[in-house]
Amino acid sequence: MSLTHFDASGQAHMVDVSNKAATAREAVAEGLVLMSPETLALAQGGAAKGDVLGVARLAGIMGAKRTADLIPLCHPLPLAKVALDLAADPALPGIRVSATVRTTGPTGVEMEALTAVTVACLTIYDMLKAAQKDMRIEGIRLLKKTGGKSGTFEAAP
Amino acid sequence: MSLTHFDASGQAHMVDVSNKAATAREAVAEGLVLMSPETLALAQGGAAKGDVLGVARLAGIMGAKRTADLIPLCHPLPLAKVALDLAADPALPGIRVSATVRTTGPTGVEMEALTAVTVACLTIYDMLKAAQKDMRIEGIRLLKKTGGKSGTFEAAP
Amino acid sequence: MSLTHFDASGQAHMVDVSNKAATAREAVAEGLVLMSPETLALAQGGAAKGDVLGVARLAGIMGAKRTADLIPLCHPLPLAKVALDLAADPALPGIRVSATVRTTGPTGVEMEALTAVTVACLTIYDMLKAAQKDMRIEGIRLLKKTGGKSGTFEAAP
Amino acid sequence: MSLTHFDASGQAHMVDVSNKAATAREAVAEGLVLMSPETLALAQGGAAKGDVLGVARLAGIMGAKRTADLIPLCHPLPLAKVALDLAADPALPGIRVSATVRTTGPTGVEMEALTAVTVACLTIYDMLKAAQKDMRIEGIRLLKKTGGKSGTFEAAP
Amino acid sequence: MSLTHFDASGQAHMVDVSNKAATAREAVAEGLVLMSPETLALAQGGAAKGDVLGVARLAGIMGAKRTADLIPLCHPLPLAKVALDLAADPALPGIRVSATVRTTGPTGVEMEALTAVTVACLTIYDMLKAAQKDMRIEGIRLLKKTGGKSGTFEAAP
Amino acid sequence: MSLTHFDASGQAHMVDVSNKAATAREAVAEGLVLMSPETLALAQGGAAKGDVLGVARLAGIMGAKRTADLIPLCHPLPLAKVALDLAADPALPGIRVSATVRTTGPTGVEMEALTAVTVACLTIYDMLKAAQKDMRIEGIRLLKKTGGKSGTFEAAP
Repeated sequence: MSLTHFDASGQAHMVDVSNKAATAREAVAEGLVLMSPETLALAQGGAAKGDVLGVARLAGIMGAKRTADLIPLCHPLPLAKVALDLAADPALPGIRVSATVRTTGPTGVEMEALTAVTVACLTIYDMLKAAQKDMRIEGIRLLKKTGGKSGTFEAAP
Repeated sequence: MSLTHFDASGQAHMVDVSNKAATAREAVAEGLVLMSPETLALAQGGAAKGDVLGVARLAGIMGAKRTADLIPLCHPLPLAKVALDLAADPALPGIRVSATVRTTGPTGVEMEALTAVTVACLTIYDMLKAAQKDMRIEGIRLLKKTGGKSGTFEAAP
Repeated sequence: MSLTHFDASGQAHMVDVSNKAATAREAVAEGLVLMSPETLALAQGGAAKGDVLGVARLAGIMGAKRTADLIPLCHPLPLAKVALDLAADPALPGIRVSATVRTTGPTGVEMEALTAVTVACLTIYDMLKAAQKDMRIEGIRLLKKTGGKSGTFEAAP
Repeated sequence: MSLTHFDASGQAHMVDVSNKAATAREAVAEGLVLMSPETLALAQGGAAKGDVLGVARLAGIMGAKRTADLIPLCHPLPLAKVALDLAADPALPGIRVSATVRTTGPTGVEMEALTAVTVACLTIYDMLKAAQKDMRIEGIRLLKKTGGKSGTFEAAP
Repeated sequence: MSLTHFDASGQAHMVDVSNKAATAREAVAEGLVLMSPETLALAQGGAAKGDVLGVARLAGIMGAKRTADLIPLCHPLPLAKVALDLAADPALPGIRVSATVRTTGPTGVEMEALTAVTVACLTIYDMLKAAQKDMRIEGIRLLKKTGGKSGTFEAAP
Repeated sequence: MSLTHFDASGQAHMVDVSNKAATAREAVAEGLVLMSPETLALAQGGAAKGDVLGVARLAGIMGAKRTADLIPLCHPLPLAKVALDLAADPALPGIRVSATVRTTGPTGVEMEALTAVTVACLTIYDMLKAAQKDMRIEGIRLLKKTGGKSGTFEAAP
């Protein structure tokens, strides 16, 4: 097998999608920020203490729009939808982040969904790092993609 | 404890660092991209197949420079050094990414190091996703920081 | 009534436009920079003194292209036309700025037209602020929009 | 009087500040978004309806960091502080936005404060435009600047 | 003849392409970086010394995506393909860079191809400038364009 | 000799400048856009036809500010001055572009000056390409640099 992001002589390129049809595509990704119960309590302080999840959600949405700036071989494409869900999960303990991205285009939006998740996770780390420096970002993965020639993918549970 | 990124009434702000001295600061972060042995073999195909690690390294360096664009409350600051180390690790199996960032400034560069690592990890995912969609990015964390009033931090091994 | 930029639980998102048809859309916006007659004379110094209006026009055109970078919940979309008209108006006294933006897409370009106008106004302020710091930017508003499901809007005179 | 942003033959340039000392500087700017009482009520719907002011505040902070990208002749410079205050004012009726920016550098941060205000105002417009298209952004002006050779400026009340 | 990037009164604008059909378009551009044989040998040091051509290739690909940010009157548009070819040419002596860009859109991608080439050439200069400061970038030109109303262009050999 | 942009094992990095003093630095670069006399006449049509040189000058200034975004291993740094000179030269025939950039920092601004020149040249090409597609950008080179440990460089005449 060869990698599509490299040509026959191994040179990186942004692969030609001229002949791929613009179809409806969706990708869902998730990630976790693990932290101590005390830090998680800070993150849930509510509006009076600061809306950590709200800031991270917005950063994730804006991050999705910067995907092609960040990922060298990623095609720039218009986005039809970006939505993030952030929820404190005391069982981790930590914050669970998921992102859903849609487009109608010739390539999928897996990277946009993954970028949205990671920028949101990094933003959570940034806001809470004064309280805890050894938080960890874990489990960043694609949950689902639909549309395109390669069809549907769903992560194992 | 309150979060420095929010003011007394809970509003997000870019915190005032006017009175913080510009000192030498360094941060080191790491992350992992876990994949199957077959995918790892593809990633190590060598120059003739495509330099996956080289592309990811460059993306990480450029990503570090975009940190303040991505993380809403992060101060923009000049960077004195950005270096990434990427190594295939058959024991994972996967690729281990670390980034070292230096500045002389009033704030630390933890977010720049973490952003460099995550952009490199995302880029690895992008290049290999045609081969394996269920790769996972794990273990993104700060390994070390030095400089600044909060002093030195070192992650537990 | 609820706001489309927030979901049912009040979370910000980039609203799904997957099912909206790509149609021809146009938006026209305007704004004013109010200043003293002396400052207005400086702004009209002509090519030998510096083309204040020409610089602001270009800044507005480039600003329109950055709209989705600046406005968090705005969809990135290709632009078919951006044109600005800037005119000194001694009756204000000041400079009147208007922008017309067109696209063929699933969402309107009101924000692009308004962003073009405000960036042009800010640029005028920047170039003239050494002469007068108490200039004011006033009357930024949408003059007209056509296309899309919500139909035509025209501002009251 | 001639304009500093143009040279002796009227050509635009980014003026030389090599010989200006890096001193502490602050600028405060404000602006208003005027709307109907009904729209203002929507903007104040609270967290359950959507945090309009929180989204706009964040957009303003991030906008301040993009100032040198937007304003052609503006020097890029690190920012030490960016804070925005947004408040619903039933007397307008509308939303009053102010921004305070600090740096230690060779040039002032008037444009950063004004850009933060205008991006926040544009974001408010974006979120509420489905409810009211004839909102107006008014009264964008510099309230105060301190530091630098030109000294302190305070707007008339 | 008048220039399409200016209106009837000589004002710059992003010209209206609303009525132009979205068709398949391709552009090929090239450029050269001339250097001494000794510098060229350094550029060809191989992976152990540093992959100068690989870094430049990636910079060119990413540069193509920034074209509309850099060229004021250029339309932003999605890109279907970006590929660069870089080859050491001892006869120059120097490095020959070419770029091929494709889109399906209402405007051509000549500027994207030329921007990819120049950013790659600048990156080569950056990496080798410690060895030779009097390198020169020469011969940046459009080799070919196809698609669009103006039809096919091919450079004289 | 080894290249400073690569480490001992040939990996690209943004080289550490922590220990380099921030000193006054200047770089001057130039480039040419060669065209037919007829195209040159169009470029000099004056304000009524469109200010080609003014648009290109502004693009060059803004381009200088994007240098670290474009050139992967280039350090981001504040700029103290950016000025471009553009002049029609019937002897070429074509347009001669030069750029002067200054900073006080730990690294030089050669890349900023060269980027300013190339972005201005590309912008000239863009505005005139409807008239002549076989224009060529030639002779992009560093004319002079001062400051820093490597001292003064002046190009041979």
